[in-house]
Amino acid sequence: MRATVIHGERDIRLEEVPDPQLASGNDAIVRVVAACVCGSDLWPYRGVTPTERPRRIGHEFVGVVEQVGVDVTAVRGGDFVIAPFYHCDNTCINCLNGVSTSCLNGGWWGAYDRSGAFVDGAQGERIRVPNANGTLVPTPATPGEDQIGSLLALADVMGTGHHAAVSAGVTTGSTVVVVGDGAVGLCAVLAAKRLGASRIIAMSRHPDRQQIAREFGATDIVEERGDEGISRVKALLDDIGADCVLECVGTRESMDQAIRSARPGGMVGYVGVPNGGPELPVKQLFGNNVGVNGGVAPVRGYIEELLPEVLSGSINPGRVFDLVLPLADVAEAYAAMDERRATKVMLRP
Amino acid sequence: MRATVIHGERDIRLEEVPDPQLASGNDAIVRVVAACVCGSDLWPYRGVTPTERPRRIGHEFVGVVEQVGVDVTAVRGGDFVIAPFYHCDNTCINCLNGVSTSCLNGGWWGAYDRSGAFVDGAQGERIRVPNANGTLVPTPATPGEDQIGSLLALADVMGTGHHAAVSAGVTTGSTVVVVGDGAVGLCAVLAAKRLGASRIIAMSRHPDRQQIAREFGATDIVEERGDEGISRVKALLDDIGADCVLECVGTRESMDQAIRSARPGGMVGYVGVPNGGPELPVKQLFGNNVGVNGGVAPVRGYIEELLPEVLSGSINPGRVFDLVLPLADVAEAYAAMDERRATKVMLRP
Repeated sequence: MRATVIHGERDIRLEEVPDPQLASGNDAIVRVVAACVCGSDLWPYRGVTPTERPRRIGHEFVGVVEQVGVDVTAVRGGDFVIAPFYHCDNTCINCLNGVSTSCLNGGWWGAYDRSGAFVDGAQGERIRVPNANGTLVPTPATPGEDQIGSLLALADVMGTGHHAAVSAGVTTGSTVVVVGDGAVGLCAVLAAKRLGASRIIAMSRHPDRQQIAREFGATDIVEERGDEGISRVKALLDDIGADCVLECVGTRESMDQAIRSARPGGMVGYVGVPNGGPELPVKQLFGNNVGVNGGVAPVRGYIEELLPEVLSGSINPGRVFDLVLPLADVAEAYAAMDERRATKVMLRP
Repeated sequence: MRATVIHGERDIRLEEVPDPQLASGNDAIVRVVAACVCGSDLWPYRGVTPTERPRRIGHEFVGVVEQVGVDVTAVRGGDFVIAPFYHCDNTCINCLNGVSTSCLNGGWWGAYDRSGAFVDGAQGERIRVPNANGTLVPTPATPGEDQIGSLLALADVMGTGHHAAVSAGVTTGSTVVVVGDGAVGLCAVLAAKRLGASRIIAMSRHPDRQQIAREFGATDIVEERGDEGISRVKALLDDIGADCVLECVGTRESMDQAIRSARPGGMVGYVGVPNGGPELPVKQLFGNNVGVNGGVAPVRGYIEELLPEVLSGSINPGRVFDLVLPLADVAEAYAAMDERRATKVMLRP
């Protein structure tokens, strides 16, 4: 089959690789119907994190089950399924605590599972899914083509934006600032709206993304950054800042923007993968009682919560996909996102 | 009158200073009945934070109102009052948000208020209280001598321990680790018990403090620190760590201990004044979804919540005072705490 391999900085190739095979009774083989490129895939693409040897890449997909191991009961051949951006058993103590990203038996796409067997990356034609009973969520019926994007968003960006909002404690009447206007930031706006925020300020400089932010529920747009951005935010929020700030980028600058946008006693919910490991300024947090909560989003648990609203059309996170390319054009998909010609690119094998 | 002045490292003196005078209509003059030395007072005492010029010190007191300004309605002459470790108007937006330590009109004992008038430190005979309507909480009647300690604890350590527990989200059935066995750490044990924690592990090496921790509700004591301490904690908690960790010290080591004692998805509530500004390791927090929440404790709001339980005797945080000295012996009070001969010293003018 064909699958995406990253060789180094700006070197993305679609290559012929071995077809996946069932390796345990709790495996499934899924034919990928749609995958996509994540903002975090751009770190190795840009060389910010090094690629020491060629490796498979991609961690978001929806697809159709082709084959299941003898122990798989949660899905069957022909089911349309959503996978989170990791695999998990959904039964261990961390999964039961709602933190399936810390599953004691889980792991990542494009890496080795705990038995030592390779797990395919998602930007390919097929994928072996370990922990299939815990990982895969089937839809009640095969979805229409117009639903694919929003279902694919549940694999990562929508659940991740939701996690930012949940981690920051967004609730009815909250004032919210969203830092980051990528797909996750836009989904965080949608999540905040859904949870009842009364005021949602999206920090965005891009007219097309501002447009989606407004559709998703943003009440205000702030284009400025740094001190000027913070002044604008505070001017909109009683001169004190927001109850909840959703940090959806992962740089030192974005985290600083987030922390300084929170009111005393506010909470930053952060889901931007920390790039370069910005440290948090504890004295500043301490003096203002600003908390920081979040991390790698346990989206598996959120899929079932959000799926009915996607299927009913009451939320449409797939709006973040503004370019669809065939898998063969995966290198162009990366380039389009890198050059900000696209917010989020869907790949169709 | 006499009041305490710190001149430099290990140089604490009781000196003659001007009597306080009313400076505004919302001032009160309070005769100090009891004050105490805070763990955070030891940073300048030890020279860890420099003392550039002699200054008044002390921020915890209870006392009797001697005089009030024309606008003071909340208390009257003769009232026994508890003050938080700062002054605040209790009406600004931050106070209303429960973060009175960020009061827009507040300030600190032993410093200048926003009108530029000096505010006395608490380790003295009398004190001018700005924002008296917002700051002072009167008791329903003059308390008995045996209640003084627990009322004084509401000025800081009990409310601060409570803030750690609230910030970490302690609730019925929570598993809790408390890092730090000073007065705040011990009060954090009491606060966690009061909030319904099912398991409370106190990290303590001192038999006398372990004893108080057990009286306050600790179910387990861990004496080890570092990797060994974390292993012991995890062995007691399903090998994953605690739902809630209460960090009550403020050093890099104690924060590291706290973060690594939390389970995936757990929350660190921290109230230890950051000494030297340890930065938080965001990648480690991110990977495990461990949140960090807390800061300088808004104890003003907690005094009214906790006072009835102190008056009824159902909680007795004054147990942390294990030495009472006359104000004249304030230098010895600092030395006793510095040398760990006492957990918390009460000073009686």
